[in-house]
Amino acid sequence: MTMPYRAERAAFLEFSHELARAAGAAALPLFRNCSQVEDKPGKTGYDPVTQADRAAEQAMREMIRARYPSHNIKGEEFGFEDNGSDLTWVLDPIDGTRSFILGMPVWGTIIGLMWRGHAIAGVMSQPYIGEIFSGDGVEARLLTAQGETALKVRACEALEDAVLATTDPRLFEQADERAAFAALEPLVRMSRYGGDCYFYAMLAAGQIDLVVETGLADYDIAGLIPIVEGAGGIVTDWEGASAVGGGRIIAAGSEALHQQAMELLRGPGA
Amino acid sequence: MTMPYRAERAAFLEFSHELARAAGAAALPLFRNCSQVEDKPGKTGYDPVTQADRAAEQAMREMIRARYPSHNIKGEEFGFEDNGSDLTWVLDPIDGTRSFILGMPVWGTIIGLMWRGHAIAGVMSQPYIGEIFSGDGVEARLLTAQGETALKVRACEALEDAVLATTDPRLFEQADERAAFAALEPLVRMSRYGGDCYFYAMLAAGQIDLVVETGLADYDIAGLIPIVEGAGGIVTDWEGASAVGGGRIIAAGSEALHQQAMELLRGPGA
Repeated sequence: MTMPYRAERAAFLEFSHELARAAGAAALPLFRNCSQVEDKPGKTGYDPVTQADRAAEQAMREMIRARYPSHNIKGEEFGFEDNGSDLTWVLDPIDGTRSFILGMPVWGTIIGLMWRGHAIAGVMSQPYIGEIFSGDGVEARLLTAQGETALKVRACEALEDAVLATTDPRLFEQADERAAFAALEPLVRMSRYGGDCYFYAMLAAGQIDLVVETGLADYDIAGLIPIVEGAGGIVTDWEGASAVGGGRIIAAGSEALHQQAMELLRGPGA
Repeated sequence: MTMPYRAERAAFLEFSHELARAAGAAALPLFRNCSQVEDKPGKTGYDPVTQADRAAEQAMREMIRARYPSHNIKGEEFGFEDNGSDLTWVLDPIDGTRSFILGMPVWGTIIGLMWRGHAIAGVMSQPYIGEIFSGDGVEARLLTAQGETALKVRACEALEDAVLATTDPRLFEQADERAAFAALEPLVRMSRYGGDCYFYAMLAAGQIDLVVETGLADYDIAGLIPIVEGAGGIVTDWEGASAVGGGRIIAAGSEALHQQAMELLRGPGA
């Protein structure tokens, strides 16, 4: 099949908002309910996953199967359901499980629609606040109970003026990644930790200039790309290649910043 | 004057909610409006203060002067207005200015009422979300558009089960503070950065077990103490003395955790 036309993409995006609302309805009763936490087996360290994570993904999968039974579904909790389609829904029911556990309202449900290797529609929803950040790579907007506002990145060209965000500096586990981040961080005006997907939404909203992370999965980033790009920003890996597969990510509000950050993160040997 | 009776304290707390709503009305139009940021003169590093900070404090001061003209007022932006009263309103119009600048909804307006050296009523308000956390040292509750819920700390007695939060590990600037935090952090189940006053609210809500910080001003903490204590928690400095003056702070959800954290933070020489 050819890439979906814009009208069809708009329908997918509207459906993504329905998915986000269903995921929120499943997750919210468990938010700030600390008894629901359990460890995710088979991983080192503390990587909690809540019943909310599973309930939210299950709710979305059922809706996708009913509405688009031919599409593929890939989610954090329940794996890849491959129906041989060119279209794949990529789901992270709760991005920022640590924020969720701490009661901090900066986690989100990320929903991406991939056409072959391209992220063509994406949503990040924060249901406790009641925000849906939505984009199709061309436009991006924030939906709340008060209405819609366009999302647009900020014009910031110089690192010394830039606001940098990363979820947790301790996630740069490899020595070369630590060194790369340490080369970048002192050059910016301000850096901040503890945001997960919410940082990408704030980059799209023109509040943050750079997000730099490592170790992301595809479902952590796929749905955020059309939002950031729709707001005029850039998302790639540290080498400048497509970010859809996850890994080491740079998101930037301007080409100039993206270029400078990438050069620093690649290091002097690159 | 004697310490205000409970009914009078309840009236003060109701008035604090009015102050919080006025501060929110003044600040919110400037939230996610990045053109409003300026540097605060005379400080090193990047310590932004927004027009919102000033507008919110001004709104609160005018209301206090009109309602309680004999009371003292101490605020982050406009200093100490000493009327010789035993009662002092301690105001931080926007705690977490960095979160505010980044568009992250975890900043708050902190309002404390001091009677001599004691914090007898306190409020932390997050107006973008629409939350007011409120306490009088005996009880604490969360007020939202959906109603009121009681706040209660979680029973967590062991560091290995505890969730620890601090606004930014880089704020431990002195070598002994860095060492103290480094002694504590590896012993907890999970630690998290980037929350400001919101972390104390989540400790009161039973989501976080320990908040450890340094370099706080009195207006950063005074209004939070009656919320945490009202929810059953403990707030002191690292030596176990009153936290009302700010400085190095431990907030804990249980006496056992408070004791263990204090011993580690004081270090082997103490």
